[in-house]
Amino acid sequence: MDQRARLRALAPRMAAKALPAMLITHLPDVRYLTGFTGSNAALVVVREPRLSARLFTDGRYTAQAKEEVAGATVRIAPKSALAEACAYAATHAGRCGFDRTQTTVATLVSMRTAARKAGARPGFFAPFDGSIATLRAVKDDAEAKVMRRAAALTCDLYEGLLSWVEAGMRERDIAAELEHRARLAGAQGMSFETIVAAGERSSHPHAHATDAILQPGDLVTLDFGIVLDGYCSDMTRTFAVGFGESRVPAKLRSRWAEQRDVFEAVLAAQVAAVRAVRTGVTCGDVDEAARSVLTESGWGKFFTHSTGHGVGLEIHEGPRVAKGQTQRLEAGMVITIEPGVYLPGRFGVRIEDTVRVTGEGAEVLTPVHKGWLEL
Amino acid sequence: MDQRARLRALAPRMAAKALPAMLITHLPDVRYLTGFTGSNAALVVVREPRLSARLFTDGRYTAQAKEEVAGATVRIAPKSALAEACAYAATHAGRCGFDRTQTTVATLVSMRTAARKAGARPGFFAPFDGSIATLRAVKDDAEAKVMRRAAALTCDLYEGLLSWVEAGMRERDIAAELEHRARLAGAQGMSFETIVAAGERSSHPHAHATDAILQPGDLVTLDFGIVLDGYCSDMTRTFAVGFGESRVPAKLRSRWAEQRDVFEAVLAAQVAAVRAVRTGVTCGDVDEAARSVLTESGWGKFFTHSTGHGVGLEIHEGPRVAKGQTQRLEAGMVITIEPGVYLPGRFGVRIEDTVRVTGEGAEVLTPVHKGWLEL
Repeated sequence: MDQRARLRALAPRMAAKALPAMLITHLPDVRYLTGFTGSNAALVVVREPRLSARLFTDGRYTAQAKEEVAGATVRIAPKSALAEACAYAATHAGRCGFDRTQTTVATLVSMRTAARKAGARPGFFAPFDGSIATLRAVKDDAEAKVMRRAAALTCDLYEGLLSWVEAGMRERDIAAELEHRARLAGAQGMSFETIVAAGERSSHPHAHATDAILQPGDLVTLDFGIVLDGYCSDMTRTFAVGFGESRVPAKLRSRWAEQRDVFEAVLAAQVAAVRAVRTGVTCGDVDEAARSVLTESGWGKFFTHSTGHGVGLEIHEGPRVAKGQTQRLEAGMVITIEPGVYLPGRFGVRIEDTVRVTGEGAEVLTPVHKGWLEL
Repeated sequence: MDQRARLRALAPRMAAKALPAMLITHLPDVRYLTGFTGSNAALVVVREPRLSARLFTDGRYTAQAKEEVAGATVRIAPKSALAEACAYAATHAGRCGFDRTQTTVATLVSMRTAARKAGARPGFFAPFDGSIATLRAVKDDAEAKVMRRAAALTCDLYEGLLSWVEAGMRERDIAAELEHRARLAGAQGMSFETIVAAGERSSHPHAHATDAILQPGDLVTLDFGIVLDGYCSDMTRTFAVGFGESRVPAKLRSRWAEQRDVFEAVLAAQVAAVRAVRTGVTCGDVDEAARSVLTESGWGKFFTHSTGHGVGLEIHEGPRVAKGQTQRLEAGMVITIEPGVYLPGRFGVRIEDTVRVTGEGAEVLTPVHKGWLEL
């Protein structure tokens, strides 16, 4: 990853805000700009006389920082990394940007105290929200490469799992097997708590895996992602547990048919939204592409969340793909497209791909089978 | 869990600060007070005319909130749960506490805007930091029970794993096997990214599991925890990979002896710190108990982090068991005791138990073998 290029991309944004320095404390932002993966870090970027970055962390990370950090000097602070970073900023610049969306009120109080002690004047810290987040939203080539690998592994894991899953298993068994396979295949971990939701539980968009058992006739929603080299993948598939050689029992026949109806409606919405993706369209337009299909088919009011979100070093990052969002997609953004329909107390369906925005459309990073499927 | 009792414990603290209302947005705090586990929530606690709580979330959680929430009414906000919560607080109280350590500067700006629209005066939001965190630090009986179960399962997993691990395995294989067993045994997930650090990598306190292979002569640090019913466990053991029937090779003899020396020093420090734990002693005293043993044995400067931290719904919570901390331990607190020594580029040792503070001492929740052990 080319950390220096990222710093160079930040510099003109700082200049446009007349900021000679920036303090960055959100860990994924620090990682993005320096490669450092430790759990305590404060990064100061100074624009003049020449663009430079200095990372402050603590003694636990002496060796790790030396190995990982690129494009920044490292300082191991014996007491507070944050306080030292603020003092450094105050002695190297007259004004310093910070991200209000990533800084707690209490941290800002500490930052001001530390900077003042080092001679900073009131108003030293100036808001500059989302400065790194907007850089991060557009993935560079090295990031796209990692994210393609993560997504491809996600697809492989799903396909492998399908040939193993069967009725009678618990949701928990499926999550355990999937996560074990992910680890063995090289994932650092899962990008969020794996969702396996069978039958009535699929009506909860965010159900965790429980002891509930997969029964013939159930829809099963599987929503998971892995972390590979720090980058998250995210994919959802919904499949049905069939009845094998037997016919659908009479009492389940209408639900079975309705499940199929809802499934096809969600799939049509998902496909429509993926088709709407291209450089220049607004996130709201992509959301509307999914929403209007579900409204037409009569399920719109059960689509209770937004269509998607950016994904990268964090599982949820910019842009938000939601109703009314005027932000325009840019080539290189990586977003999820995940409409769903949830009938309370009955069942639900969600289908999700991760896609990369290109000039002409969307590169689907998770192109594994998403049509109707019966175990 | 008795959510109402927790609300009742909060009320006098609010009264002492002359706060008729509190806005709580930190998700573990919301969970603690209501049982709700969703990813979007704002809770308003109003003290008068009678103590009440109202939880604001969104349409994804309609069914889940109904199932989970105890001691609070629920409102599904069609737009912003936070904005609705602020408006509700503004129409029910003249002043509202919030936690500066859990609220970003940007969120505070949104809170103020929403409250002002509903008629709140400037100064409506008043800082009340750590009000829920200090309640949470002392675990009630129901919590102690869950944490004992989580810790006992952690010990079982460790013992089971030991009879399986052998030289030649990758760090990654061990993490994968451990996590799979945890899942199957009922854990919802791991409480943090499992650390398996073999040989030279054990000198990094926070090493992730990699493709590095366990070799005879290595020390291996295994630091992991599970999540059970929302509560985290945390334990570290360091063990050695022995040489089987063979004698220690001549070139490794001095390192092997030194590893043993460091191990015994860390163990002595850890045992001393556990012995120092009891109601009324300061966290700094507990830290000093470990630190002084390592200073005396000459390894003190390689003990580069603090002795421990509180653990509960979050893997890191109050109190901090660190140098100079004047906070006193209270009966019912659950903390980790985890001194370590790290020789850069060579090897490291860390030993960690989770303990519950009692009037007379410490109830060790993770009483599995922690002495020298060769595979």
